[in-house]
Amino acid sequence: MQLGRESSAVGTARQRIRISYRLKCGPGQDPHEVARDIAFEQTVELPEPCVPAPIRDSIVGRVEGVTRSNSQTWMATISYPALAVGRDLGQLVNLLFGNISLKSGVQVTDLELPGRYLSHLPGPHFGIAGLRQLCGVEDGAPLSCAALKPLGLAAAELAQLCYQFALGGIDVVKDDHGLADQESAPFRERVAHCQQAVERANRETGGSSRYFPNVPSSWSTFNADLAYARSVGVVGVLVNPLIIGLDAVRHTAEQGEFALLGHPALSGAFFQADHGIAPDLLLGRVFRLIGCDGVIYPNVGGRFVLTENECAAINGRLREPLGSIKPVFPVPAGGIDVTRVPFWLDRYGPDTIFLVGGSLYSQGDLVAASRNLMKALGR
Amino acid sequence: MQLGRESSAVGTARQRIRISYRLKCGPGQDPHEVARDIAFEQTVELPEPCVPAPIRDSIVGRVEGVTRSNSQTWMATISYPALAVGRDLGQLVNLLFGNISLKSGVQVTDLELPGRYLSHLPGPHFGIAGLRQLCGVEDGAPLSCAALKPLGLAAAELAQLCYQFALGGIDVVKDDHGLADQESAPFRERVAHCQQAVERANRETGGSSRYFPNVPSSWSTFNADLAYARSVGVVGVLVNPLIIGLDAVRHTAEQGEFALLGHPALSGAFFQADHGIAPDLLLGRVFRLIGCDGVIYPNVGGRFVLTENECAAINGRLREPLGSIKPVFPVPAGGIDVTRVPFWLDRYGPDTIFLVGGSLYSQGDLVAASRNLMKALGR
Repeated sequence: MQLGRESSAVGTARQRIRISYRLKCGPGQDPHEVARDIAFEQTVELPEPCVPAPIRDSIVGRVEGVTRSNSQTWMATISYPALAVGRDLGQLVNLLFGNISLKSGVQVTDLELPGRYLSHLPGPHFGIAGLRQLCGVEDGAPLSCAALKPLGLAAAELAQLCYQFALGGIDVVKDDHGLADQESAPFRERVAHCQQAVERANRETGGSSRYFPNVPSSWSTFNADLAYARSVGVVGVLVNPLIIGLDAVRHTAEQGEFALLGHPALSGAFFQADHGIAPDLLLGRVFRLIGCDGVIYPNVGGRFVLTENECAAINGRLREPLGSIKPVFPVPAGGIDVTRVPFWLDRYGPDTIFLVGGSLYSQGDLVAASRNLMKALGR
Repeated sequence: MQLGRESSAVGTARQRIRISYRLKCGPGQDPHEVARDIAFEQTVELPEPCVPAPIRDSIVGRVEGVTRSNSQTWMATISYPALAVGRDLGQLVNLLFGNISLKSGVQVTDLELPGRYLSHLPGPHFGIAGLRQLCGVEDGAPLSCAALKPLGLAAAELAQLCYQFALGGIDVVKDDHGLADQESAPFRERVAHCQQAVERANRETGGSSRYFPNVPSSWSTFNADLAYARSVGVVGVLVNPLIIGLDAVRHTAEQGEFALLGHPALSGAFFQADHGIAPDLLLGRVFRLIGCDGVIYPNVGGRFVLTENECAAINGRLREPLGSIKPVFPVPAGGIDVTRVPFWLDRYGPDTIFLVGGSLYSQGDLVAASRNLMKALGR
């Protein structure tokens, strides 16, 4: 094989994507070899002797550093030329964890994109400032969110809940992510009813509560469902990036018609102790890069597995400076009790949307429960 | 809250989806409680006291059985009403592992769909018989597959490889899954060149080699890319279901224009020892249900982590009777050496596509290497 000499990819690739990894190496495993193996696996998928030299030099990842973390664990950074990805978000995801997902002991901990790549990825359209404006909530005040549930209620019943939450002052009333297009409350019927309900409540209170329907993760109906939601006045939606596909969310953000709340469904698959993508990287950076204006995650102490440090790291990633990409809201959820909200507000700060579910429902009177939550938020 | 009495979901739900789980329970954890928690989490996402009785009875999963497997492990089966999902594949994925991905110690091991649900999910359009026909390979003979690589070659260079593989008799010549729409070989240019190359080889050999390009996992270009591929004569494509989204694959299969090879990128995230989706269920059943005519998986003994039993289980799932859903090809890959192909053929049988990559490239002369592979397959 005498190929590669005239390849258009040959040449200096100054724009580099940097990915960091935590490697768990057993006895006899050389962390430098493991890193080099990743650099080949995630690009050319060939053993080194089969790769033409110009491609090895221009395409294969470059191991930038390997440092010992503890007896079994090493931190490695590999840089890849941006031209190994192109403009394709799917290929970026592939580079991040595609084939190496099928290895073991590799946790991806960081992803840095060069400015040129970021320009293909404009990120969230609204961000913290835009979502505050949509909901009429000033800087310095935290936001509240409630979820319409349970699955099985009819559209009119869900709309009644929506009305009560909005009447009680909840900023964002979202569908449960399990409400898709079931017969009990078909998408369009539900969206029309709930949007009307929230508008009626806003007229009565003078408030700006917003209804965020969950858009079914269906390739063939997603765009039409969004258009329908828009047509009845919806300004924000709940999306499930790992189910509909990350690029569907990026595309929707780019259109700029909806504020997007990202749901973490399926994400836990990536949160193994020694293998996967770090929670803050996946939910904090990737979900932000694809355009979520708020990212729901399971708060520590609720029904799920994230630790306090992991939650804090997600918050940090969502709000930190990142080129031209807007900061977005952390949306801790998954079993937060209303009485604990002041505690979390104190820890997480006001640029947070507090999503409270069961703890509102268990109070019975949803209007009063919502007002209790707003009080707990100091509003 | 006095809702749920008139819900349309109330009533007998005879059509049930059955999901099985392997639960790892620590000391003090009651496996029956864990199973019941899953049944609520994956449907109503509310504590039991907050769920109106009619919805509890009609929507919440029903624990059908819990049996001890060993000191820490229990097998549980929960059935869910089909109406909890509707026709939405995304919601089925959500039911399968959405929120419980964020718990620990839960491995989903089986999914059985009722006949009515299967009728919404027609599965692969070609299957084993259809793909054999496309490639002109009779019953009883195994198929071969080679991958165009490495990333970084120009379209004309990849086409030259494609020509050589086809000349050597390879049945399916696919793009490496990392070939997306990079500048080095943009999608359309690559597809046009490679398709021409395989057609030229077929004219010379009288054979029926097929070129399967990798379709970039991009929401905004996926359909147009497929239409372009079709316009130049492509009859099959490589897709990355967990990146583009499972429903994009289902939709493409339903159109019936392309045979689909599914790539396992990202799937390893789900293959934790005690938490995730069993490899045979994800790659063997789910990928088949969404319409893949062949499913690539990393064979045991190669560069990846699956065991011999897991590989055999994937093969079994892909070929076993499943209502009206056609059986499809296992495509073992990930470091198979040509010299080992007779061994694997003997184990896996002729309804298999053997994907060999580096072992062909390392031989240098790709036409001769391809002929060696065909000989190893007894053809």
